[in-house]
Amino acid sequence: MGIMKYDSGTGELAGWLVEESAFDPRYLGKCEAVFCQGNGYLGLRNALEEEYVGETRNLFVTGTFDRFDANEVTELPNMPDMTKIVLWIDGKRFSMEQGTLYDYHRTLNLKNGETVRRFEWESPDGKRIRFEFRRMASLDNEHVMASKVSVQPLNEGIDLKIVSGINGRVSNSGSQHFSEGKRRLYDYKYLEMVSETIQSNVTAALHCAHKFFINGTPVQPELLPVIDRRVIYLSAVQKVKARETFCLEKYCTVHTTRDMAYKALSKDDAVTALKEDSKASIMEVYQSDYAALMEASQKQWAKIWEDQDIIIKSQDPFDQLAMRFALYHLNIMVKKDDNRVGIGAKAMSGEGYKGHSFWDTEVFILPYYMMTQPETARTLLEYRYNTLSGARKKAAQNGYAGAMYPWESAWMDDGEVTPLWGEADVVTGETLPILTGLIEQHISADVAFAVWEYYNVTRDEDFMDRYGYEIIFETARFWASRLEWNQEKNRYEINDVIGPDEYSEHVNNNAYTNYLAWYNMDLALKLAGQLKESQDTKKQQVFNRLDQALDLKELETTVKEKISKLYLPEPDPETGIVPQFDGFFDLKEIDLTKYRESSVVGTIYNDYNMEQISHMQVLKQSDLVVLMYLLDDLFDPENKKKNYEYYEARTLHDSSLSKSTHSVLANDLGLHETAYRFFKGASSVDLGEEMRSSNAGIHSASMGGVWQSAVLGFGGVRIVGGELRICPSLPEEWTELDFHMIWRGTKLFVKVEPHQVTVTASGNPVSFELVYEWVTLENNMSVTKPIQK
Amino acid sequence: MGIMKYDSGTGELAGWLVEESAFDPRYLGKCEAVFCQGNGYLGLRNALEEEYVGETRNLFVTGTFDRFDANEVTELPNMPDMTKIVLWIDGKRFSMEQGTLYDYHRTLNLKNGETVRRFEWESPDGKRIRFEFRRMASLDNEHVMASKVSVQPLNEGIDLKIVSGINGRVSNSGSQHFSEGKRRLYDYKYLEMVSETIQSNVTAALHCAHKFFINGTPVQPELLPVIDRRVIYLSAVQKVKARETFCLEKYCTVHTTRDMAYKALSKDDAVTALKEDSKASIMEVYQSDYAALMEASQKQWAKIWEDQDIIIKSQDPFDQLAMRFALYHLNIMVKKDDNRVGIGAKAMSGEGYKGHSFWDTEVFILPYYMMTQPETARTLLEYRYNTLSGARKKAAQNGYAGAMYPWESAWMDDGEVTPLWGEADVVTGETLPILTGLIEQHISADVAFAVWEYYNVTRDEDFMDRYGYEIIFETARFWASRLEWNQEKNRYEINDVIGPDEYSEHVNNNAYTNYLAWYNMDLALKLAGQLKESQDTKKQQVFNRLDQALDLKELETTVKEKISKLYLPEPDPETGIVPQFDGFFDLKEIDLTKYRESSVVGTIYNDYNMEQISHMQVLKQSDLVVLMYLLDDLFDPENKKKNYEYYEARTLHDSSLSKSTHSVLANDLGLHETAYRFFKGASSVDLGEEMRSSNAGIHSASMGGVWQSAVLGFGGVRIVGGELRICPSLPEEWTELDFHMIWRGTKLFVKVEPHQVTVTASGNPVSFELVYEWVTLENNMSVTKPIQK
Repeated sequence: MGIMKYDSGTGELAGWLVEESAFDPRYLGKCEAVFCQGNGYLGLRNALEEEYVGETRNLFVTGTFDRFDANEVTELPNMPDMTKIVLWIDGKRFSMEQGTLYDYHRTLNLKNGETVRRFEWESPDGKRIRFEFRRMASLDNEHVMASKVSVQPLNEGIDLKIVSGINGRVSNSGSQHFSEGKRRLYDYKYLEMVSETIQSNVTAALHCAHKFFINGTPVQPELLPVIDRRVIYLSAVQKVKARETFCLEKYCTVHTTRDMAYKALSKDDAVTALKEDSKASIMEVYQSDYAALMEASQKQWAKIWEDQDIIIKSQDPFDQLAMRFALYHLNIMVKKDDNRVGIGAKAMSGEGYKGHSFWDTEVFILPYYMMTQPETARTLLEYRYNTLSGARKKAAQNGYAGAMYPWESAWMDDGEVTPLWGEADVVTGETLPILTGLIEQHISADVAFAVWEYYNVTRDEDFMDRYGYEIIFETARFWASRLEWNQEKNRYEINDVIGPDEYSEHVNNNAYTNYLAWYNMDLALKLAGQLKESQDTKKQQVFNRLDQALDLKELETTVKEKISKLYLPEPDPETGIVPQFDGFFDLKEIDLTKYRESSVVGTIYNDYNMEQISHMQVLKQSDLVVLMYLLDDLFDPENKKKNYEYYEARTLHDSSLSKSTHSVLANDLGLHETAYRFFKGASSVDLGEEMRSSNAGIHSASMGGVWQSAVLGFGGVRIVGGELRICPSLPEEWTELDFHMIWRGTKLFVKVEPHQVTVTASGNPVSFELVYEWVTLENNMSVTKPIQK
Repeated sequence: MGIMKYDSGTGELAGWLVEESAFDPRYLGKCEAVFCQGNGYLGLRNALEEEYVGETRNLFVTGTFDRFDANEVTELPNMPDMTKIVLWIDGKRFSMEQGTLYDYHRTLNLKNGETVRRFEWESPDGKRIRFEFRRMASLDNEHVMASKVSVQPLNEGIDLKIVSGINGRVSNSGSQHFSEGKRRLYDYKYLEMVSETIQSNVTAALHCAHKFFINGTPVQPELLPVIDRRVIYLSAVQKVKARETFCLEKYCTVHTTRDMAYKALSKDDAVTALKEDSKASIMEVYQSDYAALMEASQKQWAKIWEDQDIIIKSQDPFDQLAMRFALYHLNIMVKKDDNRVGIGAKAMSGEGYKGHSFWDTEVFILPYYMMTQPETARTLLEYRYNTLSGARKKAAQNGYAGAMYPWESAWMDDGEVTPLWGEADVVTGETLPILTGLIEQHISADVAFAVWEYYNVTRDEDFMDRYGYEIIFETARFWASRLEWNQEKNRYEINDVIGPDEYSEHVNNNAYTNYLAWYNMDLALKLAGQLKESQDTKKQQVFNRLDQALDLKELETTVKEKISKLYLPEPDPETGIVPQFDGFFDLKEIDLTKYRESSVVGTIYNDYNMEQISHMQVLKQSDLVVLMYLLDDLFDPENKKKNYEYYEARTLHDSSLSKSTHSVLANDLGLHETAYRFFKGASSVDLGEEMRSSNAGIHSASMGGVWQSAVLGFGGVRIVGGELRICPSLPEEWTELDFHMIWRGTKLFVKVEPHQVTVTASGNPVSFELVYEWVTLENNMSVTKPIQK
């Protein structure tokens, strides 16, 4: 164990390098995902150049969703691969699994997004060769990726053959989304593949080109094109003498008809433009070289880091690196200017969850964007607005009114795309149905909640007028229609749902769902009232438009009646514990030690099936904890702590969303050591040593969770009653936490030290609560407050 | 070089074992194909249990054709795989590429169709383990395959994990033909996957089950089912002590709705029956065990060999093995009782040529069946009859009458399925069009030729009445409509075709095509006349039926007029050489040494493109040689020899069909040494040392070719003027050749020795020419004749 290193960067790179310090094929999947590169437009898994059994090569382009057949759901299709570069040395296929490896390192430089793999290798027949593989996905030109391979024989010359090009023999675990495609070589230089998705008819144009050097001087190896089924390669043969350095630079571009550039065009016009643009693009890139492409991208990364970096001074350098690792992924997982696409649960780093967006975005990721890049947060919420048609369709299909957001969301009008079938039931051997798309309904309230949080942070009236009100009203209408009247108890209930804790299905009156539904309806009521009475002409226009479309008076009447009788589970007067759902306290308690201590999630499924788990007090993640975290003032501190402790003891943290929330809440409750432990846990979801956890891709929500643990947890940033509260408290291991945020347009620089916090403002005057005191800061003003532990 | 061994069988197995004597991943594809197993219903590539980079796992079931999308052609889809068995030893994935291998052998036992792989292995951490992998595809129950894996740690105990099941993440080089499928585990024992092809809606049911033993005693390891996308596995964990032998037996079955059993059922009924039958089938097989399954299959093989074996006593044991290797594949490549399917150019041993049938069947393979298993030959010709509708469609689409057989043929009514695009043009970089489906037209005559040969061998009047006449008339009608009138030369021509030599496209008056078209029309004319004048009531009925359907009088008139003016290229009076096509002698001659000496075919494409090759005197295979071989008495011996020598010098033998024909003809011409060299060449197409030649599958036609070289060449068996001629002549290296054949129902056992030949008859009296003398044999009579060299 222990191939990941977190402290290998020195000097300028200290705190910036994630390193794989040994080659172990069991970690292939993990490192492919963790070292994933991208720019929001594309996501490129870091599969190695040469092939290995068990590898997964993935290139995804945002928004290119396709559906394999009627039995599957739409998903982000895996594009033809351009990362594979097969090296033949003296007639044998190079593999690190043969011969002997020396001094192996693979690093992801978070500062500039480049991966570098370096090692020396002794072939089985005694040739010693130095290798270096570099790769990048450009932040300067979102269509561009590039690789650089250097091979230096040290003791004897070699016959080198390199086969490199475009490989369309990839799929999504066997489901092929692309036509074979037209393949073409231009000028013995530019390799082209133009394919189309089989159902959604998205055309993708992939190109690559190569340059070859020996000791930095261009050479022309003997070249041979290979065009075969779904592939186009160039085979290059070159003799390399001892001590010479052979170098291959490969430039790759990808364009699709779903690119923003073609948004307004017809399919035919888009294809025509795509073909021209993409060919011009590779030709232009070919005029450049790897170093220049890297420099341009690095400049963009420098801007990101100047703006977004967070400093953590900790006894453990892992903490700083984990924070930057989260920020790295948070900044490549979303196309910040495209409101037609959301964030995948695995971003674009793997096939897991098919590129679909979940409540993860709103609850775990959006806070980061809201507070640091509000324009990105707005784009993401506009995506939810753009998917309203699908949400209305889902509501109607289920017999409800308003907008019922899909549990899993893909292209704008796809509606619900949760697969219907999942893994095996260990007891019966049957494939398990996936019920979340049917009955995990809280997401509609989560979206509404996020809209209002966004508004509180930004006061973006334009967003509310165009999109925000409508989302909140439509989700409220859904909830009002969703409530079920219980005649006996004289109350409305929400029955047969799944809460965030997915280890219990078909539950009634799930605390999280009921409270959030109430919140959503209450918010709609309040806002409808405000709009109606507003003297602002703009707001009056909004009211009229929405009233006409949605009948706001009717909405007010209905919601008002229903909300007053909605059952909201209260703390048990004796224990203070709120039942997670009806009958929770009656469920069997079992010894969970084995599962809580497992380094792998979901091990309880090895012993019990869903049916059995449903009858136990065992949680994947805690509904109450996330509820208390979102609605901060719902319960008094004493009950909060009781509930936290009661449920945490029964939680397996088998969701990647769990630990960060617990970290924030534990910190709130003064459980600093626990909070730090959970921060570490959240940071380790992908970056830790567990070798399989990231195979299907990194955990996007966990990246947001790491930021939340740090900034909302230890940094103590919270929105309470619509206002900003900063009340930090560092773990013992930390001596400093520096972060910034944007509150209603004003940038706040926050420096937290163990015994004091300093906030500096840049922008319009701003008021907020700082360590229990209301402060107002003018432009360039600072304020420092002591922190009592 | 030199990992293949041909003399490792000893005792009873002498002459029966094909051996791979070392593990070299460069040979993966070759050995997968060469060691392919099957039974005519299914073809199973011999990919190793553990995975390797560069492997191709293939399971094909005859007739299950499917088309990925409108841009592709129908092909035999790759079924979900059940050969993969992943072994984890002490937590690491087992691979022969790591650690050290000792005493590696993989053998295919041609006698019983079993493959056995044995070796000892020292893991990188010093554990020494003995492995044995056995595999079979049953000849007793065509749905059944089985594997047996034995693992014996020698010095220290191991923690063994085995993951085995059904893997649907396979495709045809990236094109996925199957839906994800329903996966299910029954009784913790039977794994099931039921999938459907995406276009042709063939449902396939795959099942497998496992048994585990230690030292022969059943054990139950810790089991865990894994159902994920397109896969269902069982993971089994077992501790194995030093010197204990752990053994896994895996039983697999495959059934599809295209099985003969469901031929008469509706799709729904077929699916229902399939599900029941296939489940019952695996349960029944599970009651058996590997040894019993093997025994049952071996019994069937024994029958085959008793009936079909050919003895070659040669200085080089390779010759005997090569003959049996050919017979092995000839007996597993065809479903002998299913007239809905043909033989794929790569049989069912690889994706090459997509499972399509070519003229290969009629010209290179069918002679074997005609003369040894006439019922199989009939089934194959019935397949051509069943594809008449597609052939008529093709003729009509091209503006012709009658039946124009598809160059590539798949499911019965598919019509032409030749892909439109092939590999890269090395000069322009463009993908090359494949013209054979459009202009390689001789196949229609080849089919008619084969029908008549079959009739000559069998005198199967029933076949002729039902199918044979119609094929011959319809193809003749096609040719009559195809001829083009050359006003200037006052003759009919056939222009713009490709002959068997595919290195020249768009040629006029291709000698092979013109002569075969003439033969076809002439035959039709003769047969129509015979039928018309027949006194046999049955024949009169046939005449009336066909006359009504096809207007035989009109056919006679047209054909008679056209055939008399069809241009047939004659030997040049000076040189005796027949031009392969118009203007052949004007083409440039280039030095072909480099390409003729290359061990890899098609190397000329590395230097020239099709356009350039078309202007050179260079042949892939020789049209004249195959023409002189089929129409034995067309030219006199002197001109035959001249043409043979002229064209052979210009032939690259880049077709697998080339060498065997040359062998037969060279023998006819007294070039015995050359004939033997070509026999060796034909035998080495798959079995030789060239590592890539069989990657896409074995060469079915070459298997027939090896039989032809031996029996028609050295054995001197030929049909001349509709009668049998036997005139053997062994190469110097051989001391004996024993074979049998069936001539018009009578079995003839032929024993050829260097200076004499003995023929023994079993059945009705039979007459034939034996070494220039007409002989008649009664039942159980023998005749011996001396052979002069």
